[in-house]
Amino acid sequence: MESAIPPRLTARRTRHPRVPDDYEPGFPSFVARHSSKVRTLVLAYLGVQGASTPSWMDAALGDPDGPGHHDRATATHPEPGGPADEVTVAYWEDPAVFDRWFARYRGTWLAGAGFEGRWIEVVRPSVERYETIFGRRSRPEGAAAIANGFSGPIREHGYWGGMRDRMPASQRDPLHDPGDLDVERDGERIRVRPRGSLCLIRSGQDWSDSEGDERACYLEVIEPTLRRGMEFLRDDGRSVGCLSNRYLTLLDDVGFRAERSYGMSWWRSMADLERWVESHPTHLDIFSSFGRLAAAAQGRLELRLYHEVCVAKPEEQWFEYASCHPRTGLLAALPPV
Amino acid sequence: MESAIPPRLTARRTRHPRVPDDYEPGFPSFVARHSSKVRTLVLAYLGVQGASTPSWMDAALGDPDGPGHHDRATATHPEPGGPADEVTVAYWEDPAVFDRWFARYRGTWLAGAGFEGRWIEVVRPSVERYETIFGRRSRPEGAAAIANGFSGPIREHGYWGGMRDRMPASQRDPLHDPGDLDVERDGERIRVRPRGSLCLIRSGQDWSDSEGDERACYLEVIEPTLRRGMEFLRDDGRSVGCLSNRYLTLLDDVGFRAERSYGMSWWRSMADLERWVESHPTHLDIFSSFGRLAAAAQGRLELRLYHEVCVAKPEEQWFEYASCHPRTGLLAALPPV
Repeated sequence: MESAIPPRLTARRTRHPRVPDDYEPGFPSFVARHSSKVRTLVLAYLGVQGASTPSWMDAALGDPDGPGHHDRATATHPEPGGPADEVTVAYWEDPAVFDRWFARYRGTWLAGAGFEGRWIEVVRPSVERYETIFGRRSRPEGAAAIANGFSGPIREHGYWGGMRDRMPASQRDPLHDPGDLDVERDGERIRVRPRGSLCLIRSGQDWSDSEGDERACYLEVIEPTLRRGMEFLRDDGRSVGCLSNRYLTLLDDVGFRAERSYGMSWWRSMADLERWVESHPTHLDIFSSFGRLAAAAQGRLELRLYHEVCVAKPEEQWFEYASCHPRTGLLAALPPV
Repeated sequence: MESAIPPRLTARRTRHPRVPDDYEPGFPSFVARHSSKVRTLVLAYLGVQGASTPSWMDAALGDPDGPGHHDRATATHPEPGGPADEVTVAYWEDPAVFDRWFARYRGTWLAGAGFEGRWIEVVRPSVERYETIFGRRSRPEGAAAIANGFSGPIREHGYWGGMRDRMPASQRDPLHDPGDLDVERDGERIRVRPRGSLCLIRSGQDWSDSEGDERACYLEVIEPTLRRGMEFLRDDGRSVGCLSNRYLTLLDDVGFRAERSYGMSWWRSMADLERWVESHPTHLDIFSSFGRLAAAAQGRLELRLYHEVCVAKPEEQWFEYASCHPRTGLLAALPPV
């Protein structure tokens, strides 16, 4: 059993973990392990609305300064009456490389806006303010795809509060400085500048290996429950501190929908995310439907679950929307004009 | 909104609460407020097995050194094949007075054992290691019946970890020093001396005011779910750190079963109690059945819920069993002879 916090990020604590030292989880989970040289990650979400990603973007992603990994997904259940987003997420482990890439392609990306919306949501958290969790040690997703590999079984999971305890900064930092959203409007271009450290979660599932009863349970019980939770966050999330939520289906290399999906949401703070996760009926329903399946499978579950979470400081964020639907991303959380 | 921790028990923190300062619960709850002169409480459980409480005990409870409050209950679902316990719980706010009373009546109580079992389980926690929660500010139960009254709405509830945050000692103390149970056997008399600070919870419900759909929901959905949780803890609790659990129905003044019940359990540590409460399917089922009823009632719930919890140091505990069933109280948690 190892700690989710690698030795090089271990700090003299001023804040205690949620569980005592003798805590032992009831089942194994793993985290992504990055090279010790990595100090900052870049997670860049690039969205296009009501259209497909233009092919030049694939060339841009192949630029020598391009990301170490990216994937593409499409909105599973877009805003009623709103356009469906197609979202490319790209990951860098060197912010200087990202800066060059971004300087080269940001303008072109947003200039494509017009009949279709284009948006950019980027965070560049330090590794101290980032954490992951995976149920299996294979098939990395998201930021884990640019990591060196997986840890062994880690201790900080299987209880409410594990997410915070896995994040190295939580050893000394309450990670709680919520603030308003400032807005800069320039015609159809809108920059949103949060004054607080937003929390981003990408939480995904891969049911491509699930068969038989497990597959039926996922599709008939879990997925509808998950969808209700995603729709609650999309439509009413502001009441619980969720500024934006998207529920997306991954696309394979040739653009077909894969049997993998993820939700990604922006939160006022990690504490707000914790409260929804731990107490809201929409998430407790998701949690117990997964739990019942896991218990029934007795450790032979083929369904793969993972998440990545980060808390980015205001200066580590970039939110920009061009010709977008008024409920796109953080725009949905702005006070009425 | 006030803190569950009264100003006189506020300490310079070395440990943080579970939620940030801007947390606001979604519904009101209250705690018992004791006189500022009270430094230590005594909670004494006196049990008799397979028989009724002898009438001399009522006289003893009326002794000038007797408790400020007591109640009596009978096992709702005793051990299969085991005797039904009748349990008197008595509360003192002055341990010196309790000591005189105990010196006077302990021997007589245990001497009554023979065909019937008799047992004593007493803790005397400091007020720093004790907390309560009530959904309503009326009809105090348990230790609240010897308090001065109730607080206003308190902040530390409605999230996992509120129990710990309400306990004043948690400001500086992890409240975690689990240890083995030492045993002294003398014929049919058994003393159990835990080496760690056990955690005691009494968690109760009063459905006497519930009518119509709410009453039906309590009796047909909630109570069976609660009973399954109580039976899990009774039969298999050792696997999750629960050393003993009793599920009891209160008796009214003339000995009839009231529409009030409580579960009382001894835990290896508060952390073990937290883990069961927050993650075990048997408790999550209880939690969500209560939650659905509360949501349906939209604030007009007549069902009353409360609990009291304490963490008593080894020298603040007294466990003594005479001619008892081998699975009585902490005896169930002893290693096989």
